[in-house]
Amino acid sequence: MRPKITVEEFQRFIEDEIPLVPMLGIRTMEIGSGTAIIRMQFSENVLRPGGTVSGPALMALADVTVYAAVLGMVGRFEHSVTTNLSANFLRKPGPADVVAEGRILKLGKRLAFGECSLRTAEEEDLVAHVTATYSIPPR
Amino acid sequence: MRPKITVEEFQRFIEDEIPLVPMLGIRTMEIGSGTAIIRMQFSENVLRPGGTVSGPALMALADVTVYAAVLGMVGRFEHSVTTNLSANFLRKPGPADVVAEGRILKLGKRLAFGECSLRTAEEEDLVAHVTATYSIPPR
Amino acid sequence: MRPKITVEEFQRFIEDEIPLVPMLGIRTMEIGSGTAIIRMQFSENVLRPGGTVSGPALMALADVTVYAAVLGMVGRFEHSVTTNLSANFLRKPGPADVVAEGRILKLGKRLAFGECSLRTAEEEDLVAHVTATYSIPPR
Amino acid sequence: MRPKITVEEFQRFIEDEIPLVPMLGIRTMEIGSGTAIIRMQFSENVLRPGGTVSGPALMALADVTVYAAVLGMVGRFEHSVTTNLSANFLRKPGPADVVAEGRILKLGKRLAFGECSLRTAEEEDLVAHVTATYSIPPR
Repeated sequence: MRPKITVEEFQRFIEDEIPLVPMLGIRTMEIGSGTAIIRMQFSENVLRPGGTVSGPALMALADVTVYAAVLGMVGRFEHSVTTNLSANFLRKPGPADVVAEGRILKLGKRLAFGECSLRTAEEEDLVAHVTATYSIPPR
Repeated sequence: MRPKITVEEFQRFIEDEIPLVPMLGIRTMEIGSGTAIIRMQFSENVLRPGGTVSGPALMALADVTVYAAVLGMVGRFEHSVTTNLSANFLRKPGPADVVAEGRILKLGKRLAFGECSLRTAEEEDLVAHVTATYSIPPR
Repeated sequence: MRPKITVEEFQRFIEDEIPLVPMLGIRTMEIGSGTAIIRMQFSENVLRPGGTVSGPALMALADVTVYAAVLGMVGRFEHSVTTNLSANFLRKPGPADVVAEGRILKLGKRLAFGECSLRTAEEEDLVAHVTATYSIPPR
Repeated sequence: MRPKITVEEFQRFIEDEIPLVPMLGIRTMEIGSGTAIIRMQFSENVLRPGGTVSGPALMALADVTVYAAVLGMVGRFEHSVTTNLSANFLRKPGPADVVAEGRILKLGKRLAFGECSLRTAEEEDLVAHVTATYSIPPR
């Protein structure tokens, strides 16, 4: 199935509407129908003590990634909001770009549920795993 | 019990080490032994579509708040990292400062577990509720 | 506010409808409007390796407790279902009854969100902490 | 890699040590190194109001399944305990056996993290998704 939003539309949308997105160097790579790959550039802005990427930066990336996967299924829809996000941080990433892969596991009438795996661009090991639920209000 | 870190020490520490903190206008108000109150200023930087505060900004605030409550018990300790953070978003906050109250529910030898309630400065209703676990590596 | 379900009604309802409830020795102690206290008797049925109470038994107790707190606000309503439950196990309880205290933090039109603290009947320290979301379908 | 525990060993272990396992008709199907498939028989014992499988029964199944996947990597090890379990219930299963597939996403020195997908034996759609963390104390 063709995604209901393109990489370019989604990137423009989030850059215009979510100031954290350009600050964190978040760049959409791929969107499918219920899948998305999004990359976060390593920069000073994502740091935390210890020279590693901060949890909030990783959660921001995961949130945007699962959101992209949702919009890939339902189209641009600003009123979808996150209702639950649960993150497990599995190891400290080194100073590198982080790539997030998200996919929707269930699209219901009112809720979408997905997961997201985060890795650095260089390594196979998971840095973090996130699950997230989005409400889909009636149009 | 006296907290093991002061408001000023913690604020300086996070401002120096976590670039997201000044970007998001995060300001420490109180730290006790296992408790903390931290405020996030409403600004363009915390926005998301719909004119409300973004989930990642709220999670960043909650993460810092529970971290402050942990350091209030164990002292400045950079190597403590979040291992799990679970956020429930309960209603969209209006355009207002957000105040987070965190408290530690369990301090073990290797893990600290706490919760955090987020409200706007003007209203009593919860905006979000977060639980978080921090690892405490052996010194 | 008076609770919309009594201890006796709720206990009869869960005993009739949820076979795990009598198996696990779950007994409702108090229900308020958005609060509940429920006790689980120590018995062979709740065991796990190490002579301690199993995680699933604790999660069953917490689920029923937050459910009781929800029904205390909305009345007997069988079609409310758990949509998310997140449990943190903080220490191994000894061989003792476990008491769960639940309270609703947000009652919306479609979702109720609550938390639950679990302790043994003898000790103050938390054994586990649970957050849970229930859907409330339109009647 | 060969799993460090066999289906028979694991099944005997959990039946002997966790009374809920035989009550809920939980039967180990496959264990690999970091993976497991476990089935829960539909019976009166797993019911909840509405004729569907109860959340606690599903969480018990998921907990055992991720535990099996952990022991598939580290061998029989009774002192491993669940520290966090987060369940998302995606749709009400009909009256049918439930099959859980678990896999470990990260095995560290002190913690193992895994996920579990639950489906009925007849349908492809997810019934629930669970993530869980287990502590692995030093031997």
